[in-house]
Amino acid sequence: MNQHDLINPHKELRSVLGTRFSTDSAIRDAHARDASYHSGALPDAVAFPKTNSEVSEIVKICANYSMPIIPYGTGTGVEGAVVAAEGTLCISLNEMNRILSVNADDRDVTVQAGVTRLQLNTHLAELGTELHFPVDPGADASLGGMTATRASGTSAVCYGTMQDNVLGLTVITADGTLVRTGGRARKSAAGYDLTRLFIGSEGTLGIITEITLKLARLPEAIASAVCAFPTVDAAVNTVIELIRSGVSLVRIELLDELQMDAVNKYSGLNYEVAPTLFFEFHGSANTVAESSKIGGTIASAHGSGDFRYATDETERKRLWRARYDSYYAALNRRPGSVGYVTDVCVPISRLAECITKTKTLLQNSNLSASVLGHVGDGNFHVVFPLEPGNNDELAEAQQISDQIVDIALKIDGTCTGEHGIGIGKRAALEKEHGDAVDLMRAIKHALDPQNLMNPGKVFL
Amino acid sequence: MNQHDLINPHKELRSVLGTRFSTDSAIRDAHARDASYHSGALPDAVAFPKTNSEVSEIVKICANYSMPIIPYGTGTGVEGAVVAAEGTLCISLNEMNRILSVNADDRDVTVQAGVTRLQLNTHLAELGTELHFPVDPGADASLGGMTATRASGTSAVCYGTMQDNVLGLTVITADGTLVRTGGRARKSAAGYDLTRLFIGSEGTLGIITEITLKLARLPEAIASAVCAFPTVDAAVNTVIELIRSGVSLVRIELLDELQMDAVNKYSGLNYEVAPTLFFEFHGSANTVAESSKIGGTIASAHGSGDFRYATDETERKRLWRARYDSYYAALNRRPGSVGYVTDVCVPISRLAECITKTKTLLQNSNLSASVLGHVGDGNFHVVFPLEPGNNDELAEAQQISDQIVDIALKIDGTCTGEHGIGIGKRAALEKEHGDAVDLMRAIKHALDPQNLMNPGKVFL
Repeated sequence: MNQHDLINPHKELRSVLGTRFSTDSAIRDAHARDASYHSGALPDAVAFPKTNSEVSEIVKICANYSMPIIPYGTGTGVEGAVVAAEGTLCISLNEMNRILSVNADDRDVTVQAGVTRLQLNTHLAELGTELHFPVDPGADASLGGMTATRASGTSAVCYGTMQDNVLGLTVITADGTLVRTGGRARKSAAGYDLTRLFIGSEGTLGIITEITLKLARLPEAIASAVCAFPTVDAAVNTVIELIRSGVSLVRIELLDELQMDAVNKYSGLNYEVAPTLFFEFHGSANTVAESSKIGGTIASAHGSGDFRYATDETERKRLWRARYDSYYAALNRRPGSVGYVTDVCVPISRLAECITKTKTLLQNSNLSASVLGHVGDGNFHVVFPLEPGNNDELAEAQQISDQIVDIALKIDGTCTGEHGIGIGKRAALEKEHGDAVDLMRAIKHALDPQNLMNPGKVFL
Repeated sequence: MNQHDLINPHKELRSVLGTRFSTDSAIRDAHARDASYHSGALPDAVAFPKTNSEVSEIVKICANYSMPIIPYGTGTGVEGAVVAAEGTLCISLNEMNRILSVNADDRDVTVQAGVTRLQLNTHLAELGTELHFPVDPGADASLGGMTATRASGTSAVCYGTMQDNVLGLTVITADGTLVRTGGRARKSAAGYDLTRLFIGSEGTLGIITEITLKLARLPEAIASAVCAFPTVDAAVNTVIELIRSGVSLVRIELLDELQMDAVNKYSGLNYEVAPTLFFEFHGSANTVAESSKIGGTIASAHGSGDFRYATDETERKRLWRARYDSYYAALNRRPGSVGYVTDVCVPISRLAECITKTKTLLQNSNLSASVLGHVGDGNFHVVFPLEPGNNDELAEAQQISDQIVDIALKIDGTCTGEHGIGIGKRAALEKEHGDAVDLMRAIKHALDPQNLMNPGKVFL
């Protein structure tokens, strides 16, 4: 598209948005990529709508000029789902950041897509609702982005993923139509589940502008614990048995010995350098005490070291801060590095096998990478700290990531538990779902016949 | 379609299925309708495949002859989703009744679509897994049918609906292709959520032949209780407060005074004839005792009568049998009647208002109908025992049902919490979702361009 062709859409977009339409190169650069190694070109412009009707107008203008659209939340994704290209318009949802309604009796809330999860939880605390939004991917991501990527994170073993916590959506479709899916009822059997079709569609079917979310009750009591194990197997078997025992586990994270070493160094801690589980139990004071005791007994039967408890809030926060900082700790193993991170998810009975095979691959490679994961879901990540611009390292990391996907798929797993497809896992999606990807393509074509909504993401 | 045109598809279908292809009029009649008042014509034939490849062959033959297909489970639906028409082939999934794999460590199971929920739970008990499939719509429905209609029922307040409990599907699409969606991983961010698109699609997008389900741990202890209230408001407020208190409620059912009178008469019980809650608490022995105590205290604060407990299994089963038999008890209010049942679901804070307005409508009508529901989800049913063949009564029931939907939609509810759309709620779906129904149509057209998969159901 040459400069002449661009004059009209830009002019029309500026007439809708005024100064909230930008072609400034620094702003375009800030919206060109996500938090990962994936690179792209700059978008031609960035739009900052505040309302549904503005998004609708923008989409209609883009449809008229066949200008592709890339929606942008906080840019904290890692598979390149928001990576830009020349000739595209980035729609930042950043200024759609209003909390529209809170219904405490119904335990639901409706927010604009740019509201972040911490913003929401702060607001709920300020209102004194005793409710929170529990899905926690680590980053303070926007709820629109979390919805679009079907995010999950550390608490999914208890609360589920975005798929389980979204009741309804407002979406602007490819022709600029405003559509409301789902609603505020806790359940509905009214037609196709469009809500869950848009969840995880990574902006390829329409732009999510508002989300109605379920809220959860704040726990009465919380206890955390950290416990080292002789092997990954022992740690995973502890988790399988813990889940079977029915204790109220809210978070259960595994960090391998490399990751523990990184965490100790980055966060100034002194944990044993061994495969380690981080636990969090919620419930009444009694339940939490009972759960922690059961946890300690089961871990000990699997040869664990001491069960280090933390019920005090400061100590708990310090402990989980270390977990949240894991990604940066992993990169800090090699100062100045750029992160390549992959994730797979397998049935938990096969998790130890999958991690062991992954670690063998890593030992036989030229790269060093740490492993950490949401073990209760069978989901783990591998973080490679790569030298920026080193294409050999990048190619090797990609090759190992492909091999990890192959291992996971062979044992009934999925190529991504929570990071999504973006541009990084398109080939893996084909491997995993085969003919089902043709159904996805047919749906995409039906809902976006011009292929303007985040084109090239999820599949080609 | 005249007899001549039918010779070839019938011949081809018989060559695939042998005696499992039937044109017997009694068999066709047994597959012409569901459990409700909705009537249809007989299908031309009924097929009883046993395998995925047989279903695929059947679908390919039907596609070739443009013969519409209606999948059939146990026929226990109530909105006419399996109602037949002339010129159609009914595919009964009844002989696809094998449990394909049970993975106790991963708490998942894969079944053929014709397996019923009691068959599955009996099998899990026989294996000694200490696991069960918790979604419980009352009827011993097939798991394929429950998936296709996004069924829920009494335990959804704790375990969610089919939407929350299906991990993956095998589907034969409209051109006979076998597609696998989702998988055995507890979560996945791999592409569009086709699994949830098929859940609740009522056979209009493809035929679900296999389902991978999450299983839940059997509770250590169970306690039930029954408690009468002066008003529906008092009962609903008790539930709102109970949920807020965080007790482990598994079932919480509301029956109005007409329904309690019907239950007393039908099941030989002597409960007070007043709005009544049936509770079920699960957990450890301690938790259950604690929960029941909290339940009693909250109910009493809302002016309830005695909290009648039942921890003994026989007593519990008798009590819940009465709840399960509610539909028959409601019809027994008028011996020889046929049931017209409707359901809506609203945010729980608006439930009392919705039921009160509904009861006013009923009092001003010529019909008598009882109200019962899954109050924890904000979902309730109205059961009209109608005189068979009385079109005036049917028209009045339909008109009242439309008005109940209008009330529900005005207060952010949905036209059906769990019964689905079928043919009975198509107009209601349009009212509720407007432009979103056009997206559903676009998806239907993309996946079933010949409109052969259960045509005319969900929308026209």
